[in-house]
Parts: sequence; structure tokens; C-alpha cells
Amino acid sequence: MITKSQPIGIFDSGIGGLTVAKAVIEALPNEDIIYFGDTARVPYGIKSEETVRAYALEITRFLLKRGVKMILIACNTVSASAKKEIIEAAGEVPVLDVITSGTQKAVSLPNHQHVGVIGTLGTVNSQAYVKAIQSHDGSIEVSQQACPLLVPLAEEGWIDNDVAVQTLHHYLDVFKGSGIQSLILGCTHYPLFKEVIPKVMNGEGVEIIDSAESIAASAKTKLQELNLLNKDGGDFHCFVSDRPQRFHELAERFLGRDLKSVDVVSLD
Amino acid sequence: MITKSQPIGIFDSGIGGLTVAKAVIEALPNEDIIYFGDTARVPYGIKSEETVRAYALEITRFLLKRGVKMILIACNTVSASAKKEIIEAAGEVPVLDVITSGTQKAVSLPNHQHVGVIGTLGTVNSQAYVKAIQSHDGSIEVSQQACPLLVPLAEEGWIDNDVAVQTLHHYLDVFKGSGIQSLILGCTHYPLFKEVIPKVMNGEGVEIIDSAESIAASAKTKLQELNLLNKDGGDFHCFVSDRPQRFHELAERFLGRDLKSVDVVSLD
Repeated sequence: MITKSQPIGIFDSGIGGLTVAKAVIEALPNEDIIYFGDTARVPYGIKSEETVRAYALEITRFLLKRGVKMILIACNTVSASAKKEIIEAAGEVPVLDVITSGTQKAVSLPNHQHVGVIGTLGTVNSQAYVKAIQSHDGSIEVSQQACPLLVPLAEEGWIDNDVAVQTLHHYLDVFKGSGIQSLILGCTHYPLFKEVIPKVMNGEGVEIIDSAESIAASAKTKLQELNLLNKDGGDFHCFVSDRPQRFHELAERFLGRDLKSVDVVSLD
Repeated sequence: MITKSQPIGIFDSGIGGLTVAKAVIEALPNEDIIYFGDTARVPYGIKSEETVRAYALEITRFLLKRGVKMILIACNTVSASAKKEIIEAAGEVPVLDVITSGTQKAVSLPNHQHVGVIGTLGTVNSQAYVKAIQSHDGSIEVSQQACPLLVPLAEEGWIDNDVAVQTLHHYLDVFKGSGIQSLILGCTHYPLFKEVIPKVMNGEGVEIIDSAESIAASAKTKLQELNLLNKDGGDFHCFVSDRPQRFHELAERFLGRDLKSVDVVSLD
């Protein structure tokens, strides 16, 4: 029996998913949240699907043991490779993922015929957004671009300097004149470039879809439907599998606020 | 009893250490070489020292089981954090590391008073090059610069485009006018920028020290001393803990030749 007072579980391969936590805290300030970032094994984007699935199931079991009422897959790579397995493992606990939420937002825009997607190599190669969008409407064209350098740029804090702008041009100029009407930010790190991307895409009038905001909105709707909204929470607890260099600086950049409570746990 | 026909073991957190393997193959073409790249757990540079030590010891045991006659630590992060533990675990098998070899090259240059070092955050924060250089000669000044974006740039293959040059300016301009006489490339990926770095440092007359070449030279000298040079080998065998996206393309870029034999093994 799931109750309102149980926490929401959010997880990612690392701390990039804190952009999702940030969006969820803003949309649902009275919920308790447990975040797990697999910082010992990040990045997932270059790993094989088998490895990603095994890691994702370990984290799912970790969250379920802590009594979460809902699981949000903040990691695009995991959403692409392991969503089915996580839903099975979670049983009655609802599971939402960034790919489904971002896709729903894109296909809900009026007269939408061409969607752009940027992500890691793993996400792009998995074709997960293409399949998700075309399962809603097979006539929608999807153009993808892998942007491997954006994660390290975000972690270096170079989100609007000359190198960031030049790198974004290398990746995004291919979309110019292509007729895309929206651009899904298909990686948890990319919301940090939300200010500069429209400038690089200048004059194209492309709607930027932030999948962190999309999944936060989906979570709110789902909890309302299930009558599981909490009114008395608001705690945020962060678990990581390792405490990397510059952890606090990075975490606070992504979360947009102080990170008070962090525990390092081993999943082995 | 160590014999000439046993292979040389080389390991790294990932496939960057293939630049070391390349240099060893060039210096010692008749040796059999076993390479291990921990591609399932790369990168080490952002992980805690405890985690790096545990991983490095697992790999050391893997190589010893395969009967190596020498271990080359190609990973700067491991060299900085776990050298002592690896030497203990290796017993009579000699262990060389990139930091010691790069340092020996730098301090052997005539009238050397100021050395520059670039590396990952982990290597720079460990102060390992500073300690190693100053243990040779306490009067030598060492200036360090962490360059977190160079690894992803090398993996993207952007080693001489506008973004690479601009990024190198961000990191290296601090050395201009500083009076450094040499610059140690303190990360296995950095030899890929060996052509463009002198252009970015234009007119400074700085000697670039490639620690892959340095450790290959040290290995040759050590095997000669121990009368352990092989005349009949020449095989190269690559083990990885996971087969990441674009693995072959990347491996061949770093190794500079075809990668024929690759096995995926689990250390667990």
C-alpha cells in the first residue's frame, strides 16, 4: 500500500540528474525526495546496454528498499536501455522517465511535424527518442545530433563562454534550415545551456524542450491522479556511490541551491 | 623466476593508455604486450583515492595472473594514488609509472628550473608531479594546470579544430611569460594534442614532454638492466572491462594502428 508521505525517488548515472531534482522541487515543494547519483560509475552514455541495465536495477532496488512511492528515471541512457526492466522491478510503484516525458511535451505542441533531439552518443544511437516520438505519430520527422562535449563543458562550468558557443555551433548548425520546430534537450546536463542555445540557433524560432521540466510536470500530474500528493514533506536527501572531485561545486550548480545532506553508499 | 618471453602488462582507466602501448610497441617491437583498459569504470580522474586504489589492485592481480614480467602504469591518476600499493602487490615484478618516467625526463633536461604540468583534476590535485619533481630537486619550480576538457576533446577527435585551439588557449595561456622550460603532458590522452600545443604556446620555446614516450624509454632501459628483453615476441592483446560506444574508432586513433584482438573481461 503506497502512502502520500513516502518519498519520490530520482536517479541518474551521476549528478546531472540534479537538474531533474531541481525541477521536481520547484513543481512539488512539499514532497520528500531521495536522489541517487551513481558517481562511482558515471558516465553511462558510453557503456554497453547490458552494463547500464545491471546498474539501473541495482539502483532501483536501492530506492525501493527506502520506500519510495514513485521512481523518476532522470538518466536518458537508462530511460533508453532499461525502462522496461525497471517498471517490472518496481511492481506497483509508478515509474516515469525523461524520454517519455520529453516526447509527450514535443508531440503535444500544435502542428508539430519535425522534432530535433540532442543527447549523448548512447541516447542518440539507441534511437529511443525517434521510436518514442514516432510511436505517437509516425509522420513526425525526428533529427538527432550527439553532443559528447556538452557534459564535460557543463561540468567545467563553461556554459556560455567562447568555447561553449563554438562547440554548440559545431553541433547545432546542422539544424539550421532543417525546419525543426522544437529541440529536445535529451541529456540531464543540457538544461545548463538553455540560455545560450537559442542564441546559437538565432532566428530559428525553435521551442526548447527541457526534459527535466517535462518529467517534473508529469510526476505532479501522476501523483494527483493517484491521490498521492504530499502536503507535509520537503526534505531532499542525496545519495552517491562515490564523492568525486569538485562534487559540492558541481552538485550545487546543477541543483541550483545548497546541498545539505549527502551520503556515500556502496551498492555492491 | 621471471623469463624473457613473458609479456609486458600495461594498464589504464580506459583506452587513453593505448598512447603508452603505442610508444612501447615502437620502442620494443619484439615484446608481447597485454593491455588492460577499465572501460566499464572510466574515468578515474574524478573518483576518490580509495576507489582508484581498489580498482588498480584488481587490475594488477589480473595482469599478474596472466604472467607479466613488468607492469607499466599508464594511468596518471593511478600513478598518483596507488603506485605504492601496486609495487607491494607485484612482488618481484618491476612496476614503472608515467609520473616517475615523465619526471625523470623533465629533471634530466639541462639547467631546468621551471616545469609546467597539465593533467586531469585528480592528477593536479594530488600534487603528484610537484612532489616527484621536487623530490629530485627542491629548487625546481612547478606550475600546474588542470585541463578537464582535453580528454573529451581527444575522444571526440577534435584535436586541432577551432574548439581544440580555443580550449588550449584557455588552459595554456596562463603559462605564457611564466618562464616554464618544459611542459609535461600528464595525461594519457594529451599526446594527441602534441602537434597543436606548440602552436598555442607560440614562440615560448617550451620542450613538450610526452610521458608515454618517457615510460617506453624507461621500460626498455629497465628490461636491458634485468636482461629480460624478448627477441621473439610482438603480440599485442587488449582486454577491456566493457566495450563502449565507438570503441574501435577510438582505440585505433590512440594506438595508431589496427586493433585486432580485444576481449571483454569482468574483474568482479
